[in-house]
Amino acid sequence: MKRTKAAIIIGDGLADRPVPALDGRTPLEVADTPTLDRIAADGECGQMDPIGPGIRAGSDTSHLSILGYDPFKVYTGRGPFEALGIGMDVRGGDICFRCNFASLEGDLQFSPESGFTNAEVVDRRAQRISEGTHDLAAAVNQMSLEDITCYVKESVEHRAALVMRGPNLGPRVSDVDPHDADLPPHAAVGEDEASRKTARLLNQFVLRSWQILKGHSVNQQRLTDGKLPANILMPRGAGIAPHLEPFAERYGIKGAAVVETGLIAGIGRYLQMTVPDVPGATGGADSDEIALAKALVEMLQDHDFVLCNFKAPDLGGHDSAPEAKIKAALKLDNLVSYVLAHAPGDLHLAITADHCTPIDFGDHTGDTVPIAIRGPAVRPDSVRSFGERAVVGGGLVRIRGFDLMPILTNLMGVQEKFGA
Amino acid sequence: MKRTKAAIIIGDGLADRPVPALDGRTPLEVADTPTLDRIAADGECGQMDPIGPGIRAGSDTSHLSILGYDPFKVYTGRGPFEALGIGMDVRGGDICFRCNFASLEGDLQFSPESGFTNAEVVDRRAQRISEGTHDLAAAVNQMSLEDITCYVKESVEHRAALVMRGPNLGPRVSDVDPHDADLPPHAAVGEDEASRKTARLLNQFVLRSWQILKGHSVNQQRLTDGKLPANILMPRGAGIAPHLEPFAERYGIKGAAVVETGLIAGIGRYLQMTVPDVPGATGGADSDEIALAKALVEMLQDHDFVLCNFKAPDLGGHDSAPEAKIKAALKLDNLVSYVLAHAPGDLHLAITADHCTPIDFGDHTGDTVPIAIRGPAVRPDSVRSFGERAVVGGGLVRIRGFDLMPILTNLMGVQEKFGA
Repeated sequence: MKRTKAAIIIGDGLADRPVPALDGRTPLEVADTPTLDRIAADGECGQMDPIGPGIRAGSDTSHLSILGYDPFKVYTGRGPFEALGIGMDVRGGDICFRCNFASLEGDLQFSPESGFTNAEVVDRRAQRISEGTHDLAAAVNQMSLEDITCYVKESVEHRAALVMRGPNLGPRVSDVDPHDADLPPHAAVGEDEASRKTARLLNQFVLRSWQILKGHSVNQQRLTDGKLPANILMPRGAGIAPHLEPFAERYGIKGAAVVETGLIAGIGRYLQMTVPDVPGATGGADSDEIALAKALVEMLQDHDFVLCNFKAPDLGGHDSAPEAKIKAALKLDNLVSYVLAHAPGDLHLAITADHCTPIDFGDHTGDTVPIAIRGPAVRPDSVRSFGERAVVGGGLVRIRGFDLMPILTNLMGVQEKFGA
Repeated sequence: MKRTKAAIIIGDGLADRPVPALDGRTPLEVADTPTLDRIAADGECGQMDPIGPGIRAGSDTSHLSILGYDPFKVYTGRGPFEALGIGMDVRGGDICFRCNFASLEGDLQFSPESGFTNAEVVDRRAQRISEGTHDLAAAVNQMSLEDITCYVKESVEHRAALVMRGPNLGPRVSDVDPHDADLPPHAAVGEDEASRKTARLLNQFVLRSWQILKGHSVNQQRLTDGKLPANILMPRGAGIAPHLEPFAERYGIKGAAVVETGLIAGIGRYLQMTVPDVPGATGGADSDEIALAKALVEMLQDHDFVLCNFKAPDLGGHDSAPEAKIKAALKLDNLVSYVLAHAPGDLHLAITADHCTPIDFGDHTGDTVPIAIRGPAVRPDSVRSFGERAVVGGGLVRIRGFDLMPILTNLMGVQEKFGA
């Protein structure tokens, strides 16, 4: 009963639909990917619903599902994963919000009876402010309100995240962001006792953030330059960070995540997996796929399991650029080729995607993605190449993302038997 | 809407992975099984996950699932099924333990404050005692403590089971077995009020069992022979026997279980199915498969449904003996051939396995198992032989064990319509 190691290599958004510009083929079907085809030929193939049939997966929900954490149970809103994605420390029970830096005109007042009055949000995105948000976020970061602490970090452009940490907070809180211009901020309202505490403190945070930001040097400079000030934070999309069983405890094995984007890195860290820095892995079309492959192989030395996400195919899909997506598939083939050449020969290796990002849709869709698994415990099937349609008829038939970890831990010989 | 009868014949652990010693084929692929192949050719085929994709099933959890009882809901621990397996009467609500006969040195004391003191377990298995355990178990069987009764029965070697029956008992009880030698027994601790009652009485039972067993004639003889006495019972693995709806009530049909092992017989009795004695069915490689087939055919005379488990393939897997497993597959073919020749012509017959027991793993794994169903209501597909990979592409595609009874009761014409 030998134990083996395993890896999942995910081509982010790799799967597609027939593209008229490619004569009805998909980028993956067009791309010459001999390594992926060899894995399909040597292994067992099928289709995978990252979350469920037809469900349009995000990268976060899909990766949670593929790692065996049911997103329908653990994903309560984008806030926690948005905060994770920009590198914030998020812990189970934290209440997290997406925020905009916005431009407010007037002398903002707040009372529990009347809510926010005497001022209006004139630009919800502060003219898509592109500089200075790091300093603005730092000015309101770590604000203490009663027994809680508020953590703020900037994201790209006008975006930021807010994490509230403290006892007895609830996530059922309405948005402060009025979602339209020329309206005052909406006073947050909580639906239960814990959420009413969150709402009360959130309204305090918003008022206080305006008091701090309105005179901030970044905004003084913006006014001098004839720009609108980014003088208030508008939270929305409250979610409670779930208490997730760490990966090592759930599976009894040591796992690493070799990934490019903050969002997936955040999920890895949240599950207490090792998340190495990979210089050269930019998350862009120019990313060094061999740097990722080397990091994967290195992680396999002292980990049982590695998840690797290669971002480039998704960009080609979002940009509706078939040639870019084909090129990304070639780079993925190159990545996998390096791993096969340098990883242990008895590695169980799964190749798949986290969702489709079709060229002709430009965003994630809920179609199945192809999957191939090779390794010594696998029963090879009759599939001979790797593609959305080539895998139909394979031995895996049609699985869910949620099934993949049990399938792999079974092949690895590390899963406890259920029963006698 | 004629009603038909049905049977499931399970080759225990029949499915496998590619075996290098068999040129990458499985024992079932190598074995010449014309009857199984005919059923595949005449019927509808596919893969089955006995419990779920990748889940390593025990024989108990798998048979529960195949009979339509979700093991994730009803299986709370090995105790109840261990007790069932050795032929004990187990009822819903009973608290069941696996036990060892162990060797204790010292003058055991117990107090609620200090637990067990003044003695140590010097051998957790009493030198793997092989004789006399029937008499030892009888000496402590039916012990009354307050308002409960303790039932004890020996299993093989040093093993036994304990069933506690009475009001207000809970299963969340820690092990008395210290799991290492040279330690005193651990005082059982309960996690809730009902389990604290169980723990209190369990500690009494252990102390009392030592008082009874230490001077037992079996142990006097062992001391004379220079052996360690089997003078105490060490319970572990508490589980509460679930309240399961009897088979006949769940499906409205009369069922029998023609099986070889105590564990599966126990499940059949628990579901109040008929479980005939089958002389010649030894559960070993030498078992008389025709005796099983005859019993199956006989049961079909006055039952609507028969589950039959043939144990031999599993033994070949556990022993990593490909030839033994091939021979077992031939015997299974023989068994099925007899059934086809003697059962009603319109019988709906499913052939499958309860799990894989791969030659190269030597224990159960969570891979899919092949399934074929023949009978007048079935839609035959293009599959022409019965094997792990031959069934890929069949009409059943990939089902779960839990799906099989609805599929069969549908084919039999005995299932109530759900809706109008």
